[in-house]
Amino acid sequence: MTFARVFQGSLFTAADAHTVTFHRQALLCLDEAGVIARIIPTTATDYSTVRQAAQNHERLVVLAPNTYLLPGFIDLHVHAPQWPQAGLALDRPLADWLNTYTFPLEAKYADTGYAQRVYQHLVAELLANGTTTAQYFGTIHHAANLVLAQQCVRLGQRGYVGQVVMDNPDQTPATYRSATATLTADTERFILAVQKLAQSSRTTLVPVITPRFIPSCTPRALTLLGQLAHRYALPIQTHCSESVWEDQYVPAHFNGQRDTEVLERAGLLTAKTVVAHGTQLTAPDFARLHRTQAAVAHCPISNAYFGNAVFPVQAALDHQVTVGLGSDISGGFTPSLYRNIQQAVMASQMLQDGTTPTQPTGRAASRISAKTAFYLATKGGAQSLHLKAGQLAPGYLADFQVVHDRYATVMPTDSDSVFERLIYQTTPAEIQEVYVGGRLVHHR
Amino acid sequence: MTFARVFQGSLFTAADAHTVTFHRQALLCLDEAGVIARIIPTTATDYSTVRQAAQNHERLVVLAPNTYLLPGFIDLHVHAPQWPQAGLALDRPLADWLNTYTFPLEAKYADTGYAQRVYQHLVAELLANGTTTAQYFGTIHHAANLVLAQQCVRLGQRGYVGQVVMDNPDQTPATYRSATATLTADTERFILAVQKLAQSSRTTLVPVITPRFIPSCTPRALTLLGQLAHRYALPIQTHCSESVWEDQYVPAHFNGQRDTEVLERAGLLTAKTVVAHGTQLTAPDFARLHRTQAAVAHCPISNAYFGNAVFPVQAALDHQVTVGLGSDISGGFTPSLYRNIQQAVMASQMLQDGTTPTQPTGRAASRISAKTAFYLATKGGAQSLHLKAGQLAPGYLADFQVVHDRYATVMPTDSDSVFERLIYQTTPAEIQEVYVGGRLVHHR
Ligand SMILES: [Zn+2]
Ligand SMILES: [Zn+2]
Repeated sequence: MTFARVFQGSLFTAADAHTVTFHRQALLCLDEAGVIARIIPTTATDYSTVRQAAQNHERLVVLAPNTYLLPGFIDLHVHAPQWPQAGLALDRPLADWLNTYTFPLEAKYADTGYAQRVYQHLVAELLANGTTTAQYFGTIHHAANLVLAQQCVRLGQRGYVGQVVMDNPDQTPATYRSATATLTADTERFILAVQKLAQSSRTTLVPVITPRFIPSCTPRALTLLGQLAHRYALPIQTHCSESVWEDQYVPAHFNGQRDTEVLERAGLLTAKTVVAHGTQLTAPDFARLHRTQAAVAHCPISNAYFGNAVFPVQAALDHQVTVGLGSDISGGFTPSLYRNIQQAVMASQMLQDGTTPTQPTGRAASRISAKTAFYLATKGGAQSLHLKAGQLAPGYLADFQVVHDRYATVMPTDSDSVFERLIYQTTPAEIQEVYVGGRLVHHR
Repeated sequence: MTFARVFQGSLFTAADAHTVTFHRQALLCLDEAGVIARIIPTTATDYSTVRQAAQNHERLVVLAPNTYLLPGFIDLHVHAPQWPQAGLALDRPLADWLNTYTFPLEAKYADTGYAQRVYQHLVAELLANGTTTAQYFGTIHHAANLVLAQQCVRLGQRGYVGQVVMDNPDQTPATYRSATATLTADTERFILAVQKLAQSSRTTLVPVITPRFIPSCTPRALTLLGQLAHRYALPIQTHCSESVWEDQYVPAHFNGQRDTEVLERAGLLTAKTVVAHGTQLTAPDFARLHRTQAAVAHCPISNAYFGNAVFPVQAALDHQVTVGLGSDISGGFTPSLYRNIQQAVMASQMLQDGTTPTQPTGRAASRISAKTAFYLATKGGAQSLHLKAGQLAPGYLADFQVVHDRYATVMPTDSDSVFERLIYQTTPAEIQEVYVGGRLVHHR
């Protein structure tokens, strides 16, 4: 049998939260639909036959020396409109950062020309960083959000796109606020427009119910959005227990209820929900996330600036909560999930050790490995979205990146060393090609 | 008057620990000795004359749009022999990491051919990352250390090179241990060889007295090295209060004395000393560092893995201790001081906030800005080495990098935004040219 395309190369893929599978010089065989049909190890009896057949049909791609196949990364939490301020004003506390910098910037997306310029640049840059799927917060603007969805389609990235709802006059500026009265109609119009666009798209495109976070929404908005999520069976994204300020604001305004409880009562904590951050989550919160099967987008770089604590990844996994990774542009400064993988490991170590020598402040058994962080960026993210991607395995979408091992000439090349080096040393310069559904969407 | 070379471009340079100076389209004028003779702002009366004269003599270099001049970075703490394991085995505690991975790797530098391959690659890679001066730990091997010094000379990096001393049988393997009996002679031989090589070098090349750290040295070795440092008026580098294990080991073996005290009594804590890490330093330690004018190499990435705490940069600066930045390859995984600048900011924020939500564990007023971290990588590092570099200012060595603002097309281009973006978004791909003493030592 011949395949649509066969890639011959060494690959890494997450088996579970602690194990990475390695195949040396395997054949990654794609079908016409852009799905991985088989992965053939060199030991298979038909390896040579399949390879030769692909070569005869000019469908064989042999990876260059010291390059490797990795699954495409899945970024669960990106604020697309904040891309122009990536890396800027990170020295402000969350509430100030939102009101002084972020809301005025997001308000600019009333201009679809501006949206076009920024969103095109951002989607291309995420692809160049190996991110084949992204879940986006847009703005409150229907037209700009459709521009974002169109850029995902045009550039070939799987996109989960949300129209942000923020209607609480106490916590939003008059110049950038959703209208409570038309909230259901506005959101439905967005859902239908994205679903229409998705019909003509080769990649995944899904509308996402997106209350910004509890402080910026009225209770009525939360209830209406919960109803819409249920009616259309849609995914949901929001922020949850992100900072000390927010974690105190919510109980003070919702009769002592914490974020997870408010969300659940509004119908917004479901098996299709991804909550971002969760640095302040408690054991009862984790139990609620586990029971509802909601997932967490861990955003370690952003949390260093705004989270007031480290999200305890290992504790969440121990509670059997699904966890993926998010760049949280622009609370996080980088579009690279490699950088967030690295920070997830470092932050977990710092959580375990504590930060001061004089008093023991660490949290035991918190440290995660590079393998676990890689799992978050791939398999964990895909599970959060119920997307059959994030793994190089038969039946999974052929979303992958071809990455160069920059330092192979002077460093050990056993698979463990290569894996750690790919995780720690990859910049966009090392990401040579990126494929979504078997289609080349970026190359250097 | 004409200059040897004139660069027209916008530049950033640290004025002090909290202030960055910006000049738009200034003329950076170099003399024949590779020193900055003048910086001419556009408002100067002779700006056009100087520019025209340089152009007439084909000595004018006009930076491309959206590129900027920054001082070259100064990496105060690099273990050159550990380069092959950058990013590997970071999940081990310090003592295990040393004995199982690091000492066997360092022992391989008995082979000068291996040293040649690795050191050439490392020095070139550091230059490609904008590091124009590096202070290196070598190994115990005379010949390999000279190879390292030669590579600095050949590739044009300012090098401070140390022959590691580690003679304590309890804490070193028999296969990789300095001989106590010949320690003075061996070290003198190294000093003289480097000083001889320096005579024919265009760049700075300095031998450094390098006891590895107190646990790996006998008291006699520390005393002998202190005497040598005094006799030859040489700089000194070592590790200090790096981890809980080490911070407890030293008092247990030196009659209750802490690292800084042991070092001072041995004559190893001087105005020319740079101690690495210091995560466990106490207020009396800082007072001792201030009194002796010894500097600290802050290595934030390494510390996340091995430091068991965050070095309190701001507290050190408040004690008027000189602080610079170190990559600590391979305790830190990256040759990039940009990455360490970023981590210094994030770690300081995490120190201030603490890592867990349930108990307040933060240390107030610990947060440093991107400007302060940039100061550490430039001016702070230069001051630690008593080197007239690290600033773009008249009289300073013309060590600088030309860096591209990758995202200028969709992001604000006021100088504050550009500065933060250069700090947060620069990878080797954005570093277009690197100069040491006015000489081009790297370009893309
Ligand atoms: Zn967010
Ligand atoms: Zn070190």
